[in-house]
Amino acid sequence: MRIGIFGGGQLARLLVLEGSRLGLSFRIFDAAPHSSTCELAPFHQGAFDDQAALRSFAKSVDVVTVEFENVPAEACDYVSQFVPCYPPAQAFAASQDRLTEKQLFERLQIPTAGFAAVASVDELLEAEQRFGYPLLLKRRRFGYDGKGQWRITDRAQGKALVAELGGERLITESIVPFDRELSIIAAISRSGERTFYPLVQTVHQQGILHTATAPAPRLTEALVSQAVGYANRIADELHYVGVFALELFELQGQLLANEMAPRVHNSGHWTLDGSVTSQFENHLRAILGLPLGSTESLGTSVMRNIIGTFPPKEKLLQTGLLHLHDYTKEPHPGRKLGHVTAVAD
Amino acid sequence: MRIGIFGGGQLARLLVLEGSRLGLSFRIFDAAPHSSTCELAPFHQGAFDDQAALRSFAKSVDVVTVEFENVPAEACDYVSQFVPCYPPAQAFAASQDRLTEKQLFERLQIPTAGFAAVASVDELLEAEQRFGYPLLLKRRRFGYDGKGQWRITDRAQGKALVAELGGERLITESIVPFDRELSIIAAISRSGERTFYPLVQTVHQQGILHTATAPAPRLTEALVSQAVGYANRIADELHYVGVFALELFELQGQLLANEMAPRVHNSGHWTLDGSVTSQFENHLRAILGLPLGSTESLGTSVMRNIIGTFPPKEKLLQTGLLHLHDYTKEPHPGRKLGHVTAVAD
Repeated sequence: MRIGIFGGGQLARLLVLEGSRLGLSFRIFDAAPHSSTCELAPFHQGAFDDQAALRSFAKSVDVVTVEFENVPAEACDYVSQFVPCYPPAQAFAASQDRLTEKQLFERLQIPTAGFAAVASVDELLEAEQRFGYPLLLKRRRFGYDGKGQWRITDRAQGKALVAELGGERLITESIVPFDRELSIIAAISRSGERTFYPLVQTVHQQGILHTATAPAPRLTEALVSQAVGYANRIADELHYVGVFALELFELQGQLLANEMAPRVHNSGHWTLDGSVTSQFENHLRAILGLPLGSTESLGTSVMRNIIGTFPPKEKLLQTGLLHLHDYTKEPHPGRKLGHVTAVAD
Repeated sequence: MRIGIFGGGQLARLLVLEGSRLGLSFRIFDAAPHSSTCELAPFHQGAFDDQAALRSFAKSVDVVTVEFENVPAEACDYVSQFVPCYPPAQAFAASQDRLTEKQLFERLQIPTAGFAAVASVDELLEAEQRFGYPLLLKRRRFGYDGKGQWRITDRAQGKALVAELGGERLITESIVPFDRELSIIAAISRSGERTFYPLVQTVHQQGILHTATAPAPRLTEALVSQAVGYANRIADELHYVGVFALELFELQGQLLANEMAPRVHNSGHWTLDGSVTSQFENHLRAILGLPLGSTESLGTSVMRNIIGTFPPKEKLLQTGLLHLHDYTKEPHPGRKLGHVTAVAD
């Protein structure tokens, strides 16, 4: 079985490494080669709107999947003529735009922070009426790792920013005074089988995931059933196949959806070392219709990202108990270069 | 860091997959391409006595290691001029010939089955005096997975075989009425650090490893200290760097050395799923002088080889708890195609 992956970053790398255990082989399609994957799988360079390139790639594989959420949904639709492509294109369409994503949650009666579309100062003033300051102003598209979002403390700052962004489509969100952030990862097989990993507690720094603890401490049945319920509604609505993550705020025992990622997710990297089956392996099993693997934890895992610069490996490995993952990316401030996971009983 | 591997079979594949986690990259050198590795690392095709090919390979990597014990020791010696090559060439020289291997054990006062060199009918008759029938007759070189060895029940059969093999250098071994077979895997870092995996109980069928249970049941301190003692003596004598396996017979509480493998070993494949650090990762850490990873077990593992034909994956994966490893090799009777491991608390 040959799997085509749209995107060649670290998530593709980890899919290749985990899928190779199962005897799968891989092809990568992206606009530019990535150091993370270029030695591990044949690389097809092409634009996501180049139908000839997409067609020839699709015909070289048995199924296509995606490692980055900003893939043009049209590219997924297009290759679906030739081979199955999972997750479904509508999952990307729904989650690429913060407004349609929030509207999806709203339609599914999944609570969220208050939100409103903003493309003008007038709309900003309406939002101000509803939410007051401080509020969040975010680009609707292409934000990640805290990029493209601002915390606005007063009207003058808001007006200046809306003016500066020149009518770009934005979204305001009320600031949720959350007790903590959680994440749930779901695996939905094309056979219909579903499984969920335990909720993870996440801590972000400057908008980038810093630490994930799994299973999250102080989990209650009520929290788990809310999270699983939300994830099930999303999976049903999107006819989802594969792994996705739903990021959540916990506020006084109530879970609010923050955003979803229609792909394997950084908050699930601990599963490489701390779970019977990793999220990467289960994503591949899901899109191939193979039975899903157990999502049981091997203990309590703490995963920490390596961001910007890579500490000396001799130091990181000194304890003997740490699992190190190096994505082989060029160091760059704010860039995720790898992660370490410790698993304790 | 770029690692060159002599040999491109499943052990190289598993080294590549495990080492890639650490951010290492790989090059393979072998006489013919192997399906197991050809998609995962650049392949250098060449003969092991082609110095120009060896030189150019060595110069493309930072360190060379070996995944098959029958590598010509001269090839290791040769590339050592350019880059470090581990394990040391003398480990291959010692273990490639069943006679020198047994003599090594004897020199280190490690008990073994009775043995004698046999290259003629006269020598067979001498061995018959010492050991009686049945006895084992084995080729001294290039035997593996039960190939090149025969159980001889009487003189006529022995004479016929010696005559048929036409003066080839053989070894006779007395048959040990062992209680069970065990294996110990040692990791010896180039920094001097050493660690041992728990003893594994192995069961062979038709000379091929069938099942490994780790840690072996009914281990005693006396057994472990014998095994570790033998392994330490071998490591000292050979100035060993890397992972090696020592296969043992247990006979009434006494351990006899059967053979050693100067490489990662099938009896350690369970460590991929059942140990904090796999033998593959520790081999790479050892040859790079990185701190060794914990060899603590995550529970009791049972590893079973997939030999000859591959059962349908849907069936193998049905339990959700099984870890499947497919080496992507062409099916062939008696060929190891993959393995599965179950880990229980």
